[in-house]
Amino acid sequence: MNPSENNLKIGIVGATGAVGQELIRLLHERSFPYSVLVPLASGRSAGKTLSSGDKSWIVKEARPEAFDDLDVAIFSAGGAITKELAPQAAGRNCIVVDNSSAFRMEDDVPLVVPEINGNVLEKSRSNIVANPNCTTAITLMALYPLHREFGLTRIIASTYQAVSGSGAEAIEELRLQAKAILDGGEYPPQVYPNQIAFNLLPQVDVFLDDGYTKEEMKMLHEGRKIMGLPNLQVSCTCIRVPVFRAHSISATAQFERKPCIETARKAISAFPGAELRDDPANGVYPMPLDYSEKYDCGVGRIRYDAALENALALWVVGDQLWKGAALNAIQICEALRKYGRI
Amino acid sequence: MNPSENNLKIGIVGATGAVGQELIRLLHERSFPYSVLVPLASGRSAGKTLSSGDKSWIVKEARPEAFDDLDVAIFSAGGAITKELAPQAAGRNCIVVDNSSAFRMEDDVPLVVPEINGNVLEKSRSNIVANPNCTTAITLMALYPLHREFGLTRIIASTYQAVSGSGAEAIEELRLQAKAILDGGEYPPQVYPNQIAFNLLPQVDVFLDDGYTKEEMKMLHEGRKIMGLPNLQVSCTCIRVPVFRAHSISATAQFERKPCIETARKAISAFPGAELRDDPANGVYPMPLDYSEKYDCGVGRIRYDAALENALALWVVGDQLWKGAALNAIQICEALRKYGRI
Repeated sequence: MNPSENNLKIGIVGATGAVGQELIRLLHERSFPYSVLVPLASGRSAGKTLSSGDKSWIVKEARPEAFDDLDVAIFSAGGAITKELAPQAAGRNCIVVDNSSAFRMEDDVPLVVPEINGNVLEKSRSNIVANPNCTTAITLMALYPLHREFGLTRIIASTYQAVSGSGAEAIEELRLQAKAILDGGEYPPQVYPNQIAFNLLPQVDVFLDDGYTKEEMKMLHEGRKIMGLPNLQVSCTCIRVPVFRAHSISATAQFERKPCIETARKAISAFPGAELRDDPANGVYPMPLDYSEKYDCGVGRIRYDAALENALALWVVGDQLWKGAALNAIQICEALRKYGRI
Repeated sequence: MNPSENNLKIGIVGATGAVGQELIRLLHERSFPYSVLVPLASGRSAGKTLSSGDKSWIVKEARPEAFDDLDVAIFSAGGAITKELAPQAAGRNCIVVDNSSAFRMEDDVPLVVPEINGNVLEKSRSNIVANPNCTTAITLMALYPLHREFGLTRIIASTYQAVSGSGAEAIEELRLQAKAILDGGEYPPQVYPNQIAFNLLPQVDVFLDDGYTKEEMKMLHEGRKIMGLPNLQVSCTCIRVPVFRAHSISATAQFERKPCIETARKAISAFPGAELRDDPANGVYPMPLDYSEKYDCGVGRIRYDAALENALALWVVGDQLWKGAALNAIQICEALRKYGRI
């Protein structure tokens, strides 16, 4: 379909989740034009009322027929539901923008960070477009502008991931657990396998045979696909930290050519969606608290890496629920509109 | 002096601080033999009573004459006080074991992690012995046994440092600040330049001209000295996290020879002071909560690094106040006894 301005019908699958709520908020904050918005969720959540500002919607059950009348649906649901439902929606000519990892690595499915490779949407005819892993998207917002300057060859990254990445229940678990512990009590872990308050969990997602987690390998596979760098080398260690909603990444990036810090800073500053915050001597560097509920990803601590040739070390922070999920998905919808796909 | 068993007179400078308190606790827990223990502190703290178990001591002012009658003094005080007082103590034939960075890089001052290079104390006649930086000591407890197997050439590390490293006031600040925020209030930062509760601070110690902090460069300089590896390459990013007292480090270590994971695991297991905790598929990995108030440093997540040749990625956790400070200092005293220096 190719509806005229303001005639767009949009669905949100997983509307009651942490990302779903942010999607509805950001669609309005960014004045995304639509005529109809349909929040969809499991049968369990159907009938609930969602509201944003002075508007409210009744949640409907996410069944295949629900997509017959929609132009685009942003999916933020579990992998199993998505694998079943997204192809059915796409088959009914509703374009799917999917937050899950279900289709990201399929050859004909575009995997998009609009500032980096939004132009792939111009030619693709796929009815499914994948939204990248949150940590990968945020890391690339710092590394892609540097790649254009110096030619990225290798990333060694350690992450500091907020609990928002595990959903609304995890945010609540950190809050209640920290409170219980500070009051001298206990709050047994439910979402996580271990206590997250005042602790660190060196596990995000499940382990693969090589000792990496799926999450850690996403930066390799998705990074290669998004930036079109099939030979990129990536080693990543993903750690869950007791922070509510912004992810941080400490990265060493190695390049083909000798990097220059001043050029790097200018490239970050000039890149839409990245914000240079790099005057450490004056206490200026990005922190998760400052990048929660913010569109831009903050980049700082840029320096020549002391251990690797032609490399920079840096620190990047971005809102996991926004650039890591909802914002990027809406930016994909905006790009689909620009290219006349919706 | 070379007093006979149980005739040793020991001083603790900075006895009222976070490390000082742990020193007194551990001296007793490890049954370190002494006849007299003298807690020393600034004039402000003099006269206070300290206790451990059923024993108690009156804190005395740390003046040069206080060292005349002591065989050994463990310093855990600020750099300025230490620079002034430690040489005076050493000149009065009291051996100084110093936690500060004041003398670590002086050529004739041994910088010691006893499990790694305790044997340098056999020949050194220096009256000052330096205790390493906490993050460095903990990281090397994992990397040194691997160095012996494969020949360490390069470290790329990101740290997750607990607030205990900033002293007792910082521990209290995290506690009170988290509580205030969870109760809907505020608690302005005092020890740190920014909020630490539910946040991350990408700064530990002051910045140098090259964009690294002093803390980050300690892993390079101290690592080289402790392991006797003048050509070791190190890049480190130090981050303060809202955890109370154990430090964690995500490290990629590159070697001269191709490493083998099974050999690495055996080497860690066999190394005194290191504990292998590496069965991630079954949720077995070290976490700061499990390594608080523990002698050993935990090592896990060992895997072939996906981005660098001949490299391993791993995760190490250790108690900042113990192996990172008080325990290591007491182990130095134990080694000084073994070699007949005290």
